Amino acid sequence: MKAIDRCLELAKISESSYGTLRTFLSEAMRSCYELVGGWMREAGMSVSVDSAGNLRGVFAGTGTKTLLMGSHLDTVENAGAFDGILGVIIALELVEGLNGRRLPFNIEVIGFSEEEGVRFGVPFIGSRGFVGTLDDELLNRKDAAGISVADAIRAYGFSQDAKQNQPFAFFEFHIEQGPVLDSANEAVGIVDAIAGQSRVSVKFIGAANHAGTTPMSLRRDTLACAAEWILAVEERAKSSSGLVATVGRIQAVPGLSNVISGETTVSLDVRHASDQARENAVLELRNQAAAIAKKRNLSMNWTEQLDQPATSLDEQVIAILQAAALKEGITARKMTSGAGHDAMILAPTIPSAMLFVRSPGGISHDPAETVRAEDVAVALRIGRNVIDYLEGSLKI
Amino acid sequence: MKAIDRCLELAKISESSYGTLRTFLSEAMRSCYELVGGWMREAGMSVSVDSAGNLRGVFAGTGTKTLLMGSHLDTVENAGAFDGILGVIIALELVEGLNGRRLPFNIEVIGFSEEEGVRFGVPFIGSRGFVGTLDDELLNRKDAAGISVADAIRAYGFSQDAKQNQPFAFFEFHIEQGPVLDSANEAVGIVDAIAGQSRVSVKFIGAANHAGTTPMSLRRDTLACAAEWILAVEERAKSSSGLVATVGRIQAVPGLSNVISGETTVSLDVRHASDQARENAVLELRNQAAAIAKKRNLSMNWTEQLDQPATSLDEQVIAILQAAALKEGITARKMTSGAGHDAMILAPTIPSAMLFVRSPGGISHDPAETVRAEDVAVALRIGRNVIDYLEGSLKI
Repeated sequence: MKAIDRCLELAKISESSYGTLRTFLSEAMRSCYELVGGWMREAGMSVSVDSAGNLRGVFAGTGTKTLLMGSHLDTVENAGAFDGILGVIIALELVEGLNGRRLPFNIEVIGFSEEEGVRFGVPFIGSRGFVGTLDDELLNRKDAAGISVADAIRAYGFSQDAKQNQPFAFFEFHIEQGPVLDSANEAVGIVDAIAGQSRVSVKFIGAANHAGTTPMSLRRDTLACAAEWILAVEERAKSSSGLVATVGRIQAVPGLSNVISGETTVSLDVRHASDQARENAVLELRNQAAAIAKKRNLSMNWTEQLDQPATSLDEQVIAILQAAALKEGITARKMTSGAGHDAMILAPTIPSAMLFVRSPGGISHDPAETVRAEDVAVALRIGRNVIDYLEGSLKI
Repeated sequence: MKAIDRCLELAKISESSYGTLRTFLSEAMRSCYELVGGWMREAGMSVSVDSAGNLRGVFAGTGTKTLLMGSHLDTVENAGAFDGILGVIIALELVEGLNGRRLPFNIEVIGFSEEEGVRFGVPFIGSRGFVGTLDDELLNRKDAAGISVADAIRAYGFSQDAKQNQPFAFFEFHIEQGPVLDSANEAVGIVDAIAGQSRVSVKFIGAANHAGTTPMSLRRDTLACAAEWILAVEERAKSSSGLVATVGRIQAVPGLSNVISGETTVSLDVRHASDQARENAVLELRNQAAAIAKKRNLSMNWTEQLDQPATSLDEQVIAILQAAALKEGITARKMTSGAGHDAMILAPTIPSAMLFVRSPGGISHDPAETVRAEDVAVALRIGRNVIDYLEGSLKI
């Protein structure tokens, strides 16, 4: 299938000899722009790279308003071929499918330059540039080589300003990166919200004692305390619909097999489409951490590191996607995205929604990431239905 | 108090500028031998360093048999002043207390050269040399500088062979290194067994997935699995008298706050005076690990790293210590040592027992390690009673 072949071809363009890696404004990204930009031109689009490094192809219509479609072209380290890229290629092929036929609106296909946050440790540089929220703090941020975002942008060379006329809607097609559609055996889903996220670092402080000479009753074991709380985190999330809560990082000090852990630090990641539900969970988990620590005669430090609100996507754009799916006989489930996406950055100022394409096995950020050809075909048909609908009914 | 002052003086003899450190056959150890050896000579003892590096002072009696007393002179990194050293100094002061009076037996005071295992990663080199169980594997073992045990011994220079006439009994006085006596407000305890020890590495294998996009019901979270098992370990040990079980080391991979842990490895340390009780516990914990992993659709690898049997100390030597304590009005508790000691190495061939001296706060292997002067005085009086008893009643 052409779309999949193109994604696989792009996966070969890498700045690393170990798997696919394309970071913000890298030479690999320039090669990627040349290839995708070439396809855009062949489809009759005018192509530019804006001052935030985003690749932008405009297929001019008969009117002045613009429909925006696309996703990002950068990758994580040792990436798969489809995360982000598939959404750009689908948008491109939707334009190709017009065979040069002009619509009453422009279609702009965007390949955002930076979504994953690899080079500067901060994600969404491309989409933040697009909506004009790149602040000085971010522009002065430096990569591992000491080059700032601003310097990297200056050195790269661009043909137009990132900020332009507002599109009237943004559609982002993207692999799910999770197992929900695959386990339900569904090709696509419609994202109606991006989950808000809390990140917390939790430290339990007790006493490091000899594992052989300290009776169980006299221990102040922080690893056992953390274990009790990790189970409470899991239990809390399981009992609350739509909530995910994860402890993924743990450090026990001194971390020796024959010494009771005197200090254990764990991470907490909590996400939900409702900020209230998320905040309630975080507060309860904080109280539970304190109670478990107290019961065990330990102390506990709670450090909130992130409190990012949920983003609701646009009801009208969601409704258009629903109708477009129904036309294919698909009642697409509405779902919350647990991961952040460019649509999250655009949504506050541009009516936006996302179509998720099934991720077999839920696998992403890994060379084993795949998509099914029949699912991509469904997504393409839904995209065509969206364009038809907008052409026929939207008052432009 | 003289004994405590001497321990504190010895703590200044270090090969590290950061706290006390004296490893096997180091220059610091040589200085330590000179100081302690000098005190031995002043007390009328003949002094030598044997071929395993042990400092040996013999106070000759009128008979040929030998009573052995002492402990070790090496330390861990950033050590306290009393672990091991106190037992050597108490033995020395018991000889000093004779004021030159000859007994019907020799008293040999031994300062073992190596108990902590710092330099070669293997403990008890001194006592293993003493009883003649230094094998080729250990003699060929190399330190961080690539020097073997055998080479280190050759380079150091010694005045006598380690192996000699068997002593008729060995008494080791040692700080408890645990909180039992302190929490019971008791000065001393009598060790009747050294716990056997199992060490296991347990790996849970699941799937590393995105913390935001993977619903709770579709996770194969190895850190949550490990947490459940860590609580089972704690519960099992709490419900079994005399058992201690510890998970002190944990590694979750990839160890990122936003990724569900796909692989978690933990250590298990189980100790008990009864090998049967210990083996039963290890088997049950293995079954529980397998059951918890299975319930969670994970796999589990169980790797036994150590299975060291318990050591019973000598009933007659224990009885002598009990009588000696009773003479001071003390009904000394019998206790299991959860940590290994030189007496464990000597016990199979030499009737041995240990007297534990209270460790305030249970603290050891730390500069904050202390002893109470009144407890050391009790230990010295008990030691004198032991010598009196042996002088009066033992058929030599």
